[in-house]
Amino acid sequence: MHDAAAAIALLEGASAAAADVFRAILTRGPISRIDIARLLGLSQAAVTKAVGPLLEVGLVSDELSLPRDGQPGRPANPLMVVADALVSIGVKVNADEIVGVATDLTTSVLAVDRRPLKTTSVSSVADAIEACTATLVDALGPLAPRLCAVGVSVSGDVDTHRGVVRESAIMGWTDVPLATILTDRLGRDVLVENDVRALTVGEHWFGVGVGTDLFAIVTIGRGIGSGLHINGDVVEGAYGVAGEIGHLPLTSPEHLCPCGRRGCVEAVAATPAIVAAVSRGHGHDLTIGEIVELAHERDPIAVHTFEHAATVIGTAIATLVNLTGPQLVIIGGEAVSNFDLFETHLRAAFEEHAFGAAGRCEIVTRPHTFEDWARGAAASAIRRLAEKGA
Amino acid sequence: MHDAAAAIALLEGASAAAADVFRAILTRGPISRIDIARLLGLSQAAVTKAVGPLLEVGLVSDELSLPRDGQPGRPANPLMVVADALVSIGVKVNADEIVGVATDLTTSVLAVDRRPLKTTSVSSVADAIEACTATLVDALGPLAPRLCAVGVSVSGDVDTHRGVVRESAIMGWTDVPLATILTDRLGRDVLVENDVRALTVGEHWFGVGVGTDLFAIVTIGRGIGSGLHINGDVVEGAYGVAGEIGHLPLTSPEHLCPCGRRGCVEAVAATPAIVAAVSRGHGHDLTIGEIVELAHERDPIAVHTFEHAATVIGTAIATLVNLTGPQLVIIGGEAVSNFDLFETHLRAAFEEHAFGAAGRCEIVTRPHTFEDWARGAAASAIRRLAEKGA
Ligand SMILES: [Zn+2]
Ligand SMILES: [Zn+2]
Repeated sequence: MHDAAAAIALLEGASAAAADVFRAILTRGPISRIDIARLLGLSQAAVTKAVGPLLEVGLVSDELSLPRDGQPGRPANPLMVVADALVSIGVKVNADEIVGVATDLTTSVLAVDRRPLKTTSVSSVADAIEACTATLVDALGPLAPRLCAVGVSVSGDVDTHRGVVRESAIMGWTDVPLATILTDRLGRDVLVENDVRALTVGEHWFGVGVGTDLFAIVTIGRGIGSGLHINGDVVEGAYGVAGEIGHLPLTSPEHLCPCGRRGCVEAVAATPAIVAAVSRGHGHDLTIGEIVELAHERDPIAVHTFEHAATVIGTAIATLVNLTGPQLVIIGGEAVSNFDLFETHLRAAFEEHAFGAAGRCEIVTRPHTFEDWARGAAASAIRRLAEKGA
Repeated sequence: MHDAAAAIALLEGASAAAADVFRAILTRGPISRIDIARLLGLSQAAVTKAVGPLLEVGLVSDELSLPRDGQPGRPANPLMVVADALVSIGVKVNADEIVGVATDLTTSVLAVDRRPLKTTSVSSVADAIEACTATLVDALGPLAPRLCAVGVSVSGDVDTHRGVVRESAIMGWTDVPLATILTDRLGRDVLVENDVRALTVGEHWFGVGVGTDLFAIVTIGRGIGSGLHINGDVVEGAYGVAGEIGHLPLTSPEHLCPCGRRGCVEAVAATPAIVAAVSRGHGHDLTIGEIVELAHERDPIAVHTFEHAATVIGTAIATLVNLTGPQLVIIGGEAVSNFDLFETHLRAAFEEHAFGAAGRCEIVTRPHTFEDWARGAAASAIRRLAEKGA
């Protein structure tokens, strides 16, 4: 029998070993008890002990509906998560819109709700998230009681443990206790996370980062950020700040960054910097859409500006790679839709500055939709539940 | 009864959980069984089961000779490692000298042997390491049969898993299978590790990094390198390269680095670059000793060169900190002995470019001796033994 409340209580009270077992099944299932024991360095008895209650509350199943790869009768019944045993809500906050998704435990999307924002004031964002969550809960219908976690992701310097957005340039926020505000509104725990870190969790658990321990996501567009996954986890930073690739001092000091520092990557390579440079060159204001078109028509000012931005981004990726040595860098963000304008110079700068074998790191692009970002927020919230452990 | 062979066999055949328990006792002891269980998320029964054989072969003791902190009769007898149950040898290879130490399991030094190198040829280095190891084994006397691990650390791009020094600029080596060569010579397994990563392991287990998960070591001097410790382990890099802070493209392209790239940190801030710049400014060759003296006498060329180097190093540390968010950066390396010539500009550049709360990271210096580097090599070798796990 399925019992969502019991399942949530079980996860919240789980020992660290039991939480590890659940996480292994969630992210690597179908997986046998023997493989879990091997993966986690636990005895088979310990795995069996942890699995029992998970089976009992219906979080995990050992009855695969179909034999995998056509192999009938696998020796030990592999375990897999019952994806819809619990559901989660993830919300991505943008400056002009919030995007919410309701997902199952593997972040498959069950429902979507998008709401334009008239202002970036904290109260209008909280209003929108409250309404969005209510709509998603309605859409879940009979699954609504299975809601186990709500995650919200925001660009900027986010202290996840305290639930505070310390600084978000895009939202114009400083020290906003968003988790407390939303927990009051929704009457339940809300996780607040940096948006790129949330996306990194999502990619590691359910995306292209599955099976890759050492990878990075670099997002380009209005802002430039990155999420790093190293030694089994997202890099959070001792003070909640990490992955600030947009604010590496890789260009000359005449470029002033919106953050107030000089020579940052964002000061020449983020969309607003590109818009400002090309508009200045042409003597009148242009939109990014017009500038992309100009570049495709080989307008020299637009082309040069994109090439310069691409060189700085490629240099920044080489910097990240020389320091942390990932296997894979996934480039995402809005600007990926025009990656043709960046690619040649970006890869050339990367190859010029990548050091030795670190340069073998593969660079791929992935056009994350806003829903993918919201799924990342949901993944972060599920992750916290699955990692609670005693 | 103490039995070194049984102890080594036990560690080599340990389950991952047993290896974790041993490592917890080694690096955090004295520690109670309850605290180990809590730390590792294991049941107390599992801890007790793992501890039994460790006690039996004499690797671990629960009979503290003195009550800790004057508290008599602690409830449960805490466990600690029997430091001299096994011994290890660590060797640091420099261009002009090798430095070897014999240590106990906590890398306390039992004996030291230093040997000048006439050349950096692989065979003369292997000769020296063979002789050094023999001398240290002699010095160990009755403890010699307890030798459990030999580690050798070298500057450069080292593939630890294959035991190959892929590139070492200082030694002039490319693709040297040093582990195989030394294993043949010594008739036992030898671990070969990048020297800064080895030092990072040593600092994390037995140095200022104890209790700090997120920290970095930055070494300045003839070369500029770094070791990162994130999410419970040293960052190795997917292709064996990480922490290459000396080859971040943070200065202008007119500076050609010995690595062949342009604009690297080492191209202006490593000792050879400082020597070249000041010698050029004065129109004749100077030694680093003379240059340090000139700087202390406020010679403008020397002062300016150190200031420029310090600014680039401080910018590089801000870059590392913005990406990985450590709690602590430990600056080591030969040039630390003249840190007064770097400090002001280094800290100013760090503060200028560190992003938000990441800037709270503390920067300290530590004058590592060559023996400390060799202890790092020993720590890396002990770590591999203590992590073998099944
Ligand atoms: Zn900036
Ligand atoms: Zn270089």
